Amino acid sequence: MTLKPVRVGICGLGTVGSGTFNVLMRNADEIARRAGRPIVIEQVAARRDNPDCDTTGVKVTADIFEVAQNPDVDVLVELIGGYDVARELVLMAIANGKHVVTANKALLAHHGKELFGYARERGLTIGFEASCGGGIPIIRAITDGLIANQIDAIYGIVNGTSNFLLTEMIQKGETYQQALAAAQESGLAEADPSLDVNGTDSAHKIAIMTALAFGTDVDFDAIPVEGIDNLDEQDVAFGRDLGYVVKLLAVAHRIGDDVTAWVRPAFISTDHPLAWVGGPFNAISVYGHATGHTLYYGRGAGGSPTASAVVADVVGIGTGVLPAVFSSTRFWPDRNTTGPQVGLDGSVSRFYVRIMAQDRPGVLASISDILGRHEISIASLRQNEQARRNELVPVVVTTHSCREPAIRDAIARIDALDTTDGSTVCMPIVEEHPEEFSN
Amino acid sequence: MTLKPVRVGICGLGTVGSGTFNVLMRNADEIARRAGRPIVIEQVAARRDNPDCDTTGVKVTADIFEVAQNPDVDVLVELIGGYDVARELVLMAIANGKHVVTANKALLAHHGKELFGYARERGLTIGFEASCGGGIPIIRAITDGLIANQIDAIYGIVNGTSNFLLTEMIQKGETYQQALAAAQESGLAEADPSLDVNGTDSAHKIAIMTALAFGTDVDFDAIPVEGIDNLDEQDVAFGRDLGYVVKLLAVAHRIGDDVTAWVRPAFISTDHPLAWVGGPFNAISVYGHATGHTLYYGRGAGGSPTASAVVADVVGIGTGVLPAVFSSTRFWPDRNTTGPQVGLDGSVSRFYVRIMAQDRPGVLASISDILGRHEISIASLRQNEQARRNELVPVVVTTHSCREPAIRDAIARIDALDTTDGSTVCMPIVEEHPEEFSN
Repeated sequence: MTLKPVRVGICGLGTVGSGTFNVLMRNADEIARRAGRPIVIEQVAARRDNPDCDTTGVKVTADIFEVAQNPDVDVLVELIGGYDVARELVLMAIANGKHVVTANKALLAHHGKELFGYARERGLTIGFEASCGGGIPIIRAITDGLIANQIDAIYGIVNGTSNFLLTEMIQKGETYQQALAAAQESGLAEADPSLDVNGTDSAHKIAIMTALAFGTDVDFDAIPVEGIDNLDEQDVAFGRDLGYVVKLLAVAHRIGDDVTAWVRPAFISTDHPLAWVGGPFNAISVYGHATGHTLYYGRGAGGSPTASAVVADVVGIGTGVLPAVFSSTRFWPDRNTTGPQVGLDGSVSRFYVRIMAQDRPGVLASISDILGRHEISIASLRQNEQARRNELVPVVVTTHSCREPAIRDAIARIDALDTTDGSTVCMPIVEEHPEEFSN
Repeated sequence: MTLKPVRVGICGLGTVGSGTFNVLMRNADEIARRAGRPIVIEQVAARRDNPDCDTTGVKVTADIFEVAQNPDVDVLVELIGGYDVARELVLMAIANGKHVVTANKALLAHHGKELFGYARERGLTIGFEASCGGGIPIIRAITDGLIANQIDAIYGIVNGTSNFLLTEMIQKGETYQQALAAAQESGLAEADPSLDVNGTDSAHKIAIMTALAFGTDVDFDAIPVEGIDNLDEQDVAFGRDLGYVVKLLAVAHRIGDDVTAWVRPAFISTDHPLAWVGGPFNAISVYGHATGHTLYYGRGAGGSPTASAVVADVVGIGTGVLPAVFSSTRFWPDRNTTGPQVGLDGSVSRFYVRIMAQDRPGVLASISDILGRHEISIASLRQNEQARRNELVPVVVTTHSCREPAIRDAIARIDALDTTDGSTVCMPIVEEHPEEFSN
């Protein structure tokens, strides 16, 4: 017996859309064999042709909403991005009885709860493996593979563009602007890279993973977010001298009964399990109370890797796997309780601090004194000799663990000294999360 | 509406059995919330009490076959190990209408095809996430998350004991016997570690993953297997000087239309993505034609990590996820075609070769001459000075890529020289597998 084909409507024919189109077209036989039924492209909606896609013989429309109303479409694949029109499109598809597969993290970070709830109400499924980590099956790991675990923490490198830029800065000593220009030239950064480099994209992803892993609502706007766009190459270099590499981390972990989530550039030791993750690759560490540390690595963006995740969801809907996960398990955003979400105030970390200070007697003493009065213990302090007079010199301090508000307050006071220029840089030094087997 | 509980019978209360028991008992509420229904332990079969498990209030029997016939058990969890009695137990459980969850790689490597076929015939499911990679959800990645991909290759470090021993040898310069004694003392190696260190356990796992990933039958006995039990610490040290670390690799990849699978100690460069995997951890790299390289890392053994995988399968059976994957997708061993499986003869690799030779004129020339006549190009050659006369000196050669039969034949000829002692060591130097995006 062969089951009826799954009929797919693809909205959006950009990088991921064309990747999805091509994976489904070119590997139709193999996918049908594995899925136990054919997956056919019923319709494609795109504002313009994509030369990478041969749409001969496929219904093409410029109107995405036509797909959402097409009675011959079983699964609408939303790859248009953004979150206003996309929300409307997904709501219309669900209203018309269609399952939805999306790679849209912004949409889910902002409207996930509403969309998941509506889909479930209508007995439909939303697949979103492609929303986090590109080709890495991280959503399945959290919602299925690790289901026996209470998750303690997630540490992710989840923006490929940022990681590529940081890798270039670290390896070639480039400035942020030099690395960005090169990445844009080679197509690894968009013309407007803002959402990638300012941390927003990473925040979308950690919001989705946090809601799934911890079973709490996530207020996206309450996530502290800092990108790599203000990163100074001298801090990259000082960090390297200290044995650290800088990574844009998206982190969520429990603090007692609360959950904190944040995105910011952080130093990690070169033997930290995320330190080797270079170039455009992503990796996500998940710490469960039964598994301990597990890590998932792969290409976090790009047409074909992300298409792999989109197609897995389409197949999963066809086989009934995804509807089973979606309907029966209880940890989707719309089934979460509103849990306490705390910012950085409860965080404890080591810190890297660079102060631009005058090179004269008493300056180091006053800095040390401020840190001491905030009960911040200095792990290392380095002031490099400077050639010319009257220039400010960088004073690089690393601290032992202290509370986030303490370091913030201390830096405010250091910046207020008339011997500093008020531009102190502070970055967390993140140690590997401890494995806590509570079994 | 709350669904009826899933009633579990656990056979075997060793490390994984007691871990499973405790995860299910202690996290019953959280698991029930996530699974959408309670998971209860109906019966436990164990030859003796395990002090780590409080079985008060649980039916305990010494007879595993009682569990397979208990009408109140929905899922039989087979954790007794071995493959004769275990096969009988699983067949009886299926005959009595029970789903089966197993961590038993030996059982599946030898009898998987029969057991999968029988389960499917009876409309039942076998869950075996715990059979490969302990707490790492690698079976789900291959059968679900990466379903859109044609898999090109799998490179795994899948035996925690071996990886722990190698890490100790590399980091502390210990001999194999010293590392083993320490591991046995700390419980990280069994009293009889044979199956772990001689490569058999890794071969079981690569056999299972190969059948799933490539859709071909695997003849377990045709897999070339070599363990770490004959590894000489001087080769570990010479390798380190050359920039390599030694890992016990379990590898399967396509060679044209064929598939090759093997297990052996190999050198990898320190910047290879598997080089950082230390201690008892496992990692599996999967190269798909759409995702490119993805990697999965975690604890490959131990009670609680492996229990995480067992419980995920039990929950998956309860939610219907696992039966959906098992019944509808087409790449289980019993649905495979018998494909061509080739040994190492088709392999091309770089090699590390250590020859114990006399330190006198003409010896290096004769070695180079033999390699040259086999069209094996030398990448580096090192002969260290030796203090005493008439002793043999180690000559360490690394080669450029050559065919496996060529190096084997060349070594036979080198070993036949009367200037060598006939004990030449040869290990492959494995480069990172290339990502081949065929999309």
